[in-house]
Amino acid sequence: MFVINETHDSRLTSWVPSANDASCDFSIQNLPFAIFRRSNTDDAFRGGVAIGDQVVDLKLLAETNLLSELAQEAVIACSNSRLNDFMSMGESAWTALRLALSKALRTGSAGQVLMGTCLVPQANIEYSLPCQIGDYTDFYSSIHHATSVGALFRPDNPLLPNYKWVPIGYHGRASSIDVSGQVFHRPCGQTKALDEVEPCLQPCQRLDHELELGIFVGPGNALGKPIPMADAEGHVFGVCLFNDWSARDIQGWEYQPLGPFLAKNFASTVSPWIVTMEALTPYRAPFSHPSDDPQPLPYLSSVENTAQGNISIELEALLQTEKMRAAGEAPERISRSNFIHSYWTIAQMVTHHTVNGCNLRPGDLFGTGTQSGPLPEEAGSMLELSMGGKQTLTLQNGETRTFIEDGDAVVIRGWCKNDNAARVGFGEVVSTVLPARTLG
Amino acid sequence: MFVINETHDSRLTSWVPSANDASCDFSIQNLPFAIFRRSNTDDAFRGGVAIGDQVVDLKLLAETNLLSELAQEAVIACSNSRLNDFMSMGESAWTALRLALSKALRTGSAGQVLMGTCLVPQANIEYSLPCQIGDYTDFYSSIHHATSVGALFRPDNPLLPNYKWVPIGYHGRASSIDVSGQVFHRPCGQTKALDEVEPCLQPCQRLDHELELGIFVGPGNALGKPIPMADAEGHVFGVCLFNDWSARDIQGWEYQPLGPFLAKNFASTVSPWIVTMEALTPYRAPFSHPSDDPQPLPYLSSVENTAQGNISIELEALLQTEKMRAAGEAPERISRSNFIHSYWTIAQMVTHHTVNGCNLRPGDLFGTGTQSGPLPEEAGSMLELSMGGKQTLTLQNGETRTFIEDGDAVVIRGWCKNDNAARVGFGEVVSTVLPARTLG
Repeated sequence: MFVINETHDSRLTSWVPSANDASCDFSIQNLPFAIFRRSNTDDAFRGGVAIGDQVVDLKLLAETNLLSELAQEAVIACSNSRLNDFMSMGESAWTALRLALSKALRTGSAGQVLMGTCLVPQANIEYSLPCQIGDYTDFYSSIHHATSVGALFRPDNPLLPNYKWVPIGYHGRASSIDVSGQVFHRPCGQTKALDEVEPCLQPCQRLDHELELGIFVGPGNALGKPIPMADAEGHVFGVCLFNDWSARDIQGWEYQPLGPFLAKNFASTVSPWIVTMEALTPYRAPFSHPSDDPQPLPYLSSVENTAQGNISIELEALLQTEKMRAAGEAPERISRSNFIHSYWTIAQMVTHHTVNGCNLRPGDLFGTGTQSGPLPEEAGSMLELSMGGKQTLTLQNGETRTFIEDGDAVVIRGWCKNDNAARVGFGEVVSTVLPARTLG
Repeated sequence: MFVINETHDSRLTSWVPSANDASCDFSIQNLPFAIFRRSNTDDAFRGGVAIGDQVVDLKLLAETNLLSELAQEAVIACSNSRLNDFMSMGESAWTALRLALSKALRTGSAGQVLMGTCLVPQANIEYSLPCQIGDYTDFYSSIHHATSVGALFRPDNPLLPNYKWVPIGYHGRASSIDVSGQVFHRPCGQTKALDEVEPCLQPCQRLDHELELGIFVGPGNALGKPIPMADAEGHVFGVCLFNDWSARDIQGWEYQPLGPFLAKNFASTVSPWIVTMEALTPYRAPFSHPSDDPQPLPYLSSVENTAQGNISIELEALLQTEKMRAAGEAPERISRSNFIHSYWTIAQMVTHHTVNGCNLRPGDLFGTGTQSGPLPEEAGSMLELSMGGKQTLTLQNGETRTFIEDGDAVVIRGWCKNDNAARVGFGEVVSTVLPARTLG
C-alpha cells in the first residue's frame, strides 16, 4: 500500500486541455468517480470519471470495448446507477481502471478519438448519490473539535477520558444523506432553554454546518471477522467532502444518554466526486500522537500507519447568504482546516469499527467528524466559530452570523497540493437551507 | 384506525387443524408475514404467511390467481425475496391481502383445495431477513429499564431530565442484524476497569441480551415532511421480536459523549414472523402517562393514542445453556414482561422520529428498547437481572449466570391473549453465542 505509481507522475498531461490548468481539481493524476447523467434527460444514471471540465461517461466507455481484462470488467461495473459493485471489487480492479483511464487520457494517447466520444462537459450534467449507503457512521476524529464542543456542552469536563484511546464514533442516518445541491427545510424539534422549566417544539435556533470528509467503504468484511490494520486501507474506496448538518439546540436537549439523534438526521450532504485512496498517495505524511499522549493500543498500530497514515487535505468552508446570491457575490470563506490534524487515521477508523466483528459493506459511509484545526479560524462549525453563539461573525457585506440562517448556502471545498505532486481536488459540496415548514 | 373487523372474530376457525389449537401462536386471527424457502434447496426466498404449523407460500399463491384486484397485487409484491415492496403499499393493500387470506383459510372455504397446494410445513423451511433494512433506530421506551440501567452507569443521576419529554432514540447498525438462528462470536473490544489506569482490548466480559420488540416501517415519508400522530400508525407495517445484543463493559467505556457504538453493532436478531398492526388491534388499551408526570407535548398527542395507543404484548426471555442443550433440557425462563409498560407508544416513536423532517423508508426497523417492567423479575436484560453483575442467577440445573456465557442461547417469545380474542403470537427469536475469536 501507499505505493507511488505512474498515475501519480506530476509530469503527465492530458489531451483534455482544461485538466492541465494548475488550478484545476481534476488533473490526470486525480481521476475521481461520481454517478451522473446528462441534465434534463431521463437517461439512466451511470458512473463517470472527471478529467478537467469534462466527465468520462463510463457506460459509454464500457460499450466501446476500448479497455481490456480487469479494467473492462471494472468499467462495466461502473455502468450501473450505483458504484457499489465497483466498490466491492477491491484495489486491483480500482487500480486497473485508474491506470487504463490514465493511459487513455494522456497527451498522445492512441485512444483519444474513441475516448473523445465518451466525454460530456461537466456543465451539462447532474449528479446522484454515488452509491447505496447501507450504513453511515460518524467519527469524531478532530481532538480540537472534540475539546471545543465538549467545553460548550460540558464546561467542567470538555475532553472525556476515553478520547485519546478510542476512535469515538456513533451510528448516523443513511436515508437523509443526499448529494451536493441538497436543499432542505430548517428542522423543528424539541428544545429547552436553560432558564425554562419545560421544553417546547420549535424551529431550530442554532443550525450548524460540520466540515467533514466522507470515506466510502470498498469490499468490507463478513460479520465476526475484524479487519486488521495491515488490511484496513484495502477496504477504503475513496474520500469525498461531507457536510453533516447539525441542530445544536435540539442536540443539547436530546443527546444524553444515547447520543445525537434528531439533531443530525434531517440532512447530510456528500460531494459528487469520490477521490480514490490511490490518488491521495502523494499527499501522505507520517502519523503519530504527541509523545506525552497515550500511544494507540496494538490493534490500532501498524508500521504503515506510523510511516504514512496521515493525509494532507486542505479544507475550507464558505458561506453564501441569500443577499450575497442576489447580488451575484461569490461564497465567502469562513474557515480553513486540514485533515492532517485528525487524531485518528482512516485505517484506525476501519480497524476499530470492525474489532468487535461488526461487518462493513461496499458503499458504507464514514464521516470523519468535524475537521477543526488547532487555531480558532480553523474551526469546522459555526458552534465553534461563534463560541457557542456568543461571538458574532461579520461578513464582508456587513451581514452578521452566529449560526446558519434561512437562505444561506454552505460550500465545502478540499484539495491536495505539494511541491512534488499535481493538484488533486475534491470539487465542492453545497447545500442550502430553506425556512422551517409551518408546524401543523 | 384501530378498527375491529371480521378477521379478528374469535369464533373463526381454519381448515388447517393446528391453527385452531388454543396454544398455537399462528391462529387464523394472526396471519403474520415472513420471508422463507424450503430447507436445503436453492429456491428463491419468498414471502409466506403462517397458519398453524404451516406456511402459505405467497409466490405459489400469486401464481394460482386465486385472489383478485388489490389482494392479488399485494400477493405478487410478496413473491419477492424481500417484503419492502409490500411494506411500501400501505394499509389498504395489507388489509386486502389479510382479508383474502382469512377467507381462503377459513373452515368451509371454497378455496381450500387450491390453497392447500400452497402450504408448506413450517418444519421444512428456513427463513431470511424479512426485508432490506435501510436504517435501524433503537428507542429507549421502558422507563423501568432507563431508570435501572441509568442507576448502574450514573448512580447519582439515573433518569435524565429529558426522559419524560423526549422519546429517546439513537441510530443503530443495520448490517449486523440477522434473522432468528443467528450465531455469533463474543465480541472483543476496548474496556477499562475502574481500578485500571489504561484500557485494554479483550473479549467482552459482560455480554447481555435485550428483550425488545422490532417495528417495521411501511410507506414512510419524504425528507422534510413530518408524519403527524393521526397518520403515524398507517406507516407501521408490523411488529416482531428483537434481541439487541449488548456488550456492557465496552459500552461503559465508549458511550460518552456520542452514545453506544461497538457495544451494540456486533449482532442483533429479529424473529422471522412480523405480526401486522391490524392483527394486534384486539389487544389495544388506553394510554396515558401518570398524572403527576409531564403530559406529552401537543405534537405527540392524539385522541386515538390516548384511547388505544397501548398494546398488551406478553414477553418472556429464556436461556438455554450448552449443558442444558446437551442434556436435552428446554430453555428456562429468566424474565417476563409486557409491552404495555412502555412509556411511549409506537405512534409517538414514528411522529417524534420524523418531526424534524427525517425520512423513513419501507423496511426501516425501530427497536423499542429493552422492555423491562416495574418488578425486578420483569427486567429485560442480564444487566438488570444481576444488578450490574452483583447478584447471581441460579438456574434449575444448578448453573449460575451474571451475564451471558459462551454456548448460551437466548430465546425471546411474545404473544397476545385476552378473554375476547384468540391468541396472536410472535413465535420466537433465538440467537447463540460462540467463544470470542483469537485476537491477532
